This record gives sequence, structure tokens and C-alpha cells, in this order.
Amino acid sequence: MSEFRLQKTTFGWQGLIEAYRPYLPVSAATPVVTLLEGNTPLIPVPYISQLIGRGVRVFVKYDGLNPTGSFKDRGMTMAISKAKEVGAKAVICASTGNTSAAAAAYARRAGMRAFVLIPDGYVAMGKLAQALVYGAEVIAIEGNFDQALKIVRELSDNYPITLVNSVNPYRLEGQKTAAFEIVDVLGNAPDWLCIPVGNAGNISAYWMGFCQYRQQEKCDRLPKMMGFQAAGAAPLISGQPISHPETIATAIRIGNPANWEKALAAKEASQGEFNAVTDAEILEAYRILASHEGVFCEPASAASVAGLLKVRDRVPSHATVVCVLTGNGLKDPDCAIKNSNNAVKSGVAPDLSAVAKVMGFE
Amino acid sequence: MSEFRLQKTTFGWQGLIEAYRPYLPVSAATPVVTLLEGNTPLIPVPYISQLIGRGVRVFVKYDGLNPTGSFKDRGMTMAISKAKEVGAKAVICASTGNTSAAAAAYARRAGMRAFVLIPDGYVAMGKLAQALVYGAEVIAIEGNFDQALKIVRELSDNYPITLVNSVNPYRLEGQKTAAFEIVDVLGNAPDWLCIPVGNAGNISAYWMGFCQYRQQEKCDRLPKMMGFQAAGAAPLISGQPISHPETIATAIRIGNPANWEKALAAKEASQGEFNAVTDAEILEAYRILASHEGVFCEPASAASVAGLLKVRDRVPSHATVVCVLTGNGLKDPDCAIKNSNNAVKSGVAPDLSAVAKVMGFE
Repeated sequence: MSEFRLQKTTFGWQGLIEAYRPYLPVSAATPVVTLLEGNTPLIPVPYISQLIGRGVRVFVKYDGLNPTGSFKDRGMTMAISKAKEVGAKAVICASTGNTSAAAAAYARRAGMRAFVLIPDGYVAMGKLAQALVYGAEVIAIEGNFDQALKIVRELSDNYPITLVNSVNPYRLEGQKTAAFEIVDVLGNAPDWLCIPVGNAGNISAYWMGFCQYRQQEKCDRLPKMMGFQAAGAAPLISGQPISHPETIATAIRIGNPANWEKALAAKEASQGEFNAVTDAEILEAYRILASHEGVFCEPASAASVAGLLKVRDRVPSHATVVCVLTGNGLKDPDCAIKNSNNAVKSGVAPDLSAVAKVMGFE
Repeated sequence: MSEFRLQKTTFGWQGLIEAYRPYLPVSAATPVVTLLEGNTPLIPVPYISQLIGRGVRVFVKYDGLNPTGSFKDRGMTMAISKAKEVGAKAVICASTGNTSAAAAAYARRAGMRAFVLIPDGYVAMGKLAQALVYGAEVIAIEGNFDQALKIVRELSDNYPITLVNSVNPYRLEGQKTAAFEIVDVLGNAPDWLCIPVGNAGNISAYWMGFCQYRQQEKCDRLPKMMGFQAAGAAPLISGQPISHPETIATAIRIGNPANWEKALAAKEASQGEFNAVTDAEILEAYRILASHEGVFCEPASAASVAGLLKVRDRVPSHATVVCVLTGNGLKDPDCAIKNSNNAVKSGVAPDLSAVAKVMGFE
């Protein structure tokens, strides 16, 4: 794709691998598969800042504006580029949400096949729609999720198929670039980073990114890592795996996080905290973000803001806080319909004064 | 919001008003209401380029990655900032799609009320979900769409309410910045700009942007403006308004475009063309974009690529072509579910060789 190289200007963002090449395990031999992911906006949220007061400045890192609508694109540009480098003809994952959508988009763009393995009857088609439109081939086995995971591992051991589940080490490498972007915009690391925690990969990736930038003297401090889990899926708070996790925040509905140890290390090294937020608190933050700040995120994303509001009294005065919003609200339209507080006022007479009255202007 | 000002670095995109302030009708007195819209990726599409061949380079301007998922954010940051400047307490529109979502997000962020006026029983709730979650107040009148338009005009004449329908002149001013961004990335204007045409505002705005940049010597040429309408809603091709426009591409299902004359002038001045594409052609382009390029857009957006493919033989060899993708595919999940060619293969035995066989690896 060298013929497509763009100008290297302020405006010519070429994706996160080109932007952060010295910090990533790529070489000149790596074929870069990119949708120009990354470079997502760090949006000030003045209403939420005022709820906290005391000069605290809050921003949201709106990673829902990545090409497939979630932070998974950051890891997938790395995972797929590295898969292509070693000649993979296909990729596979056992996920049904944001990971499968990102895997399908990047794999198909690279000219590979994209497989998604799921247990029969386990998954609603709506959740898979995005992966399917990107060209994923979905296979449903007569078995459970554990069997699906076992088979995808065996496939990647025996065929030219790359596993892009969370075990793929390149994914966290790509995800860490979100920390770089925050420092590049703020000029330093924030005081606090608030982040939803499900599989615990993203909190680990952010910590890796901040530490790496600190070593390179791109920032002179490290943030306190504040991880928030949904109360019904909070193994890192209870200290043991949950066999039947339940929460409206499906993207963090995980009972036994793959990156448990890494996340714990990040929390401890940063003198951070893990806390749980209820579904009601998550939905309240979700509504505040949309209807006061104009930012529409997935329910799971709102856990970071719900958590911040929950522990607001402990935020140091004048602190700079970044809340990570991992996915786009458009991913889950049903949640929006069910949880909007607004009703339609119907049956209004079609004249100026009747409408003005309904609006409260007379 | 001055306390939120970010570093003016390569990374610190502050929204399109700050980026293009000298080109926009704003002053130091204008309170900038922004979600950091704009700066959307210009993505190379190598598969589509190869379909055309002869060294033609095709890019898509993926404006679906704006904060509310469509190009409407570009106009709305201007319209709402200007409304706030004159002390408006509310905004109103008679739209039900992308405009109402953008209006609600920006108005609520500015602390204003956002009203959407619709005819009773006319609109499916799904289409309004995004506006509602952003906090829009929807009023359904016992009347038709023309009556709704008349009332919103009267309201804005008699109350501190700003009309943000397409008649608002600031919207095209904001939208023209997409042309600036394309030139800033490519280093010049493209040879062709392919764009979906419904109300014909966006094609007019792009042309205004290219002409303004040409005057400022930011580029040394102007693109041929290639406008594409859906065959069932193609008044600019037939030369007369359509009373019952029909197409799957709802965002361009418009029978009597508000900006008819401006669009015609842009076509003629640029020696461009208007052409119609069928729904089948639109859906084919929609599928190609998603499953070969990894770019998921609204059906209406795909009209630009469908049109390019339709007239591919007339593209000059080695030309640079930009196709505008106006909205995010996640806006219309039903279309994705209905028009994905992939089926789920179910009932597969849970063992390595059975799955490998289904995948075609044995």
C-alpha cells in the first residue's frame, strides 16, 4: 500500500503504528494493516467536572470513535499486522462482541478470512451483526464456551490461523498507545485514570503505556489507576472468580479476567484502587454523559464515570482526571431506547401557541 | 471553558472551529461549543482502487467517525456556537435522523434545550433513539411535515429559539471544513470528489470549501464534483421534485432538495456530473466497503462509492478520487443484519477436525 502513503503533516494521521512505531514491536518488514485507528478525542466534560467541583478537571478519552467503534481496534491493528507478517491466512477468536467486529474488519482488510467460534444457541444475532457485515464467518459448535476456546487454541497450533483472542500478546501493545495519546495532548500524565475493568487487559495496557512514556521522559509522573468493575461481575474486588457474572454492561461481564495479575500489579504500583459500581450507577453516568456532555458511550464505558462520581470526595482538589470510554453507544441501541428518560409528547395541535405552550414558552 | 484548553500540539485537535477559525464566521466573542468533531480519517481503499485499476487512487472520507456518527456534527458545532452567542435558550428542528441527533448533543452540551418537532405517527422510535438519549424533547403534532416546518419557523421568529434545520446558514460553513481537511492531508484537492446527494447541502458546502482553499492558494486546482442520488429519490437528475421519494438510503430520501441551485452551480462550475444509483448498487458498495475495506457506513454513504464504480470507466488514469462517507453504519443496524451475505454455520461437532473441515482447512 506504499502508493497510498499520505503527507506526514499535522493532519495526516496514519494510524497508531506509524505514530508510535519506536514503541511497538514492528519492523520495516511488518505490513501495516490500518484503518487509521487511534488519535481519538480527549473531550473535556465540564458538567461532570462541576459535579465534583474543587477545580477538578475531567476529560473523557472517547475511544468509541475508533473505526469499528471500540478500543479493540488499537490492539487489532497490531495483531493483524503481525499475523500478516508471518503469513497467516486466517484469524479466529471465540468472542462475540467488540473483539469479533474489530478482528473481522482488520482481517478482511488484510485479505484474510476471519472466523468467529461460538457455542450453539448462546449468542443473539444482533450482537454478531457488525462482525457479519465485516465479513466474519461464524461457526457455532455443539458445545460450551470452554470447548470453543480449546478448539480455537488447537486450530492456531495446527493451521496457518492466528488466534486474536486476549491471549494474543500484540493486542495489549496496541492498546497501550491510548496512554501515549493522553500524555501527548495533556502534556503530562493525568493525576487519575478511571477505567472500566472486565478482562483487565485495557488497564494493564494503559499502565504499560504510561510507564513506557515515563521511562522515555515524555511525562514526569504516573497516574493513579482507578479500575471500576460492575457490581455483578467484580472478581477483582471480591478476590475470587465469579461463575455467573451479571450486569447490563455486557462488555465487562467477565467472571475470571485473563489479565488478573497484571491489573493487580498496575493497581498496586500506582497506589490505585479497584471499586465496584452498580448497574443503576452505570446507567446514571451513561445518561449524564449523553444528555449533559453530548457523549454517547456503551454502558460498560460509563462504569469509569460512574466510579469517578462514586469516589468523588477522594479526588484531590485541582486534579486532572481522565475517564476511559471504551466503546460507542451506537453499539447498543436497545440500551439507549430502554434508558432514555425522555418521552415523546404527542397529540399536540398543529399551531404555534399550542406547540409553544408544550415547550414551556407561554 | 477556558480552563479546559488543551495543548496546541500535533495531537491536540481542538475541534474544527479552532482548527479553521480564520475561515469561519466566528469571533473572540463566540462561545465555542465543541465535541472535538472533524479531523476524521481519510482512509485509502485499495480493494476498490484495484476494481478501477489504471493507477487510480481512491480514499474514503469517513465522516461517520464524528462524535454523533455523522457529518452533521460539522455544521452543528457552528450552528450551536452561534446560537449561544446570541443568547438562544433552545434550538429546534423538524428532522428525525442525523440532524436531530447532532442538534440534541450540541445543544445539551451548551446547556440549551433541544426540541424536535415531528408529525404524529410518522416516525419510528428507533430512528429517534439517539436524539432522545442526548436529551432531545420530541413533540409530535397532529399535522403533516409541512405544518411542522411552518411551526418551527414561527417559533424561531417569536421566541429565543434557534432553528437548526438546513436553512440555518452556519451549518454549511461548518460542513465546508471537510474539504479543508482533505486538502490538508492530500496536499492538494483530489481530481474527483464523489458525494451522496439528498438535500444537496453537503455538496454545496464541500464546493464552498474547495473554492475558498483555492483562493487562499492552499490547493492549485479544484475537484470535479460528482454527485450521486438514489434512483428512487433523484430530482437533480430528473430535473423536477419527486413527491414520494423511495430508497433504502434514508439519509438521502429527499424529493425536493433545499440547496438545489447551489448544488447545480457546483456541478457546472466544476464540470462535474449528477448520476443516479439503484438501491442494489448502493447495497453492493455498502457490502464491499465493509467486507473488503473494513469500513462500515450508512447505506446513504455508500452511494458515493456505488456511483464511482458505476462510472469507473470515465475516471482518468492515475487520478486521485475521494468518496465521502457521511454516516456511521452503526446508525442503521437493521440494514446490516438484513444485508450481510454471511450465514452462521451451526450444528458443528465440538472437535478440532470437524471445525477445521468446516473452515476449509482439511
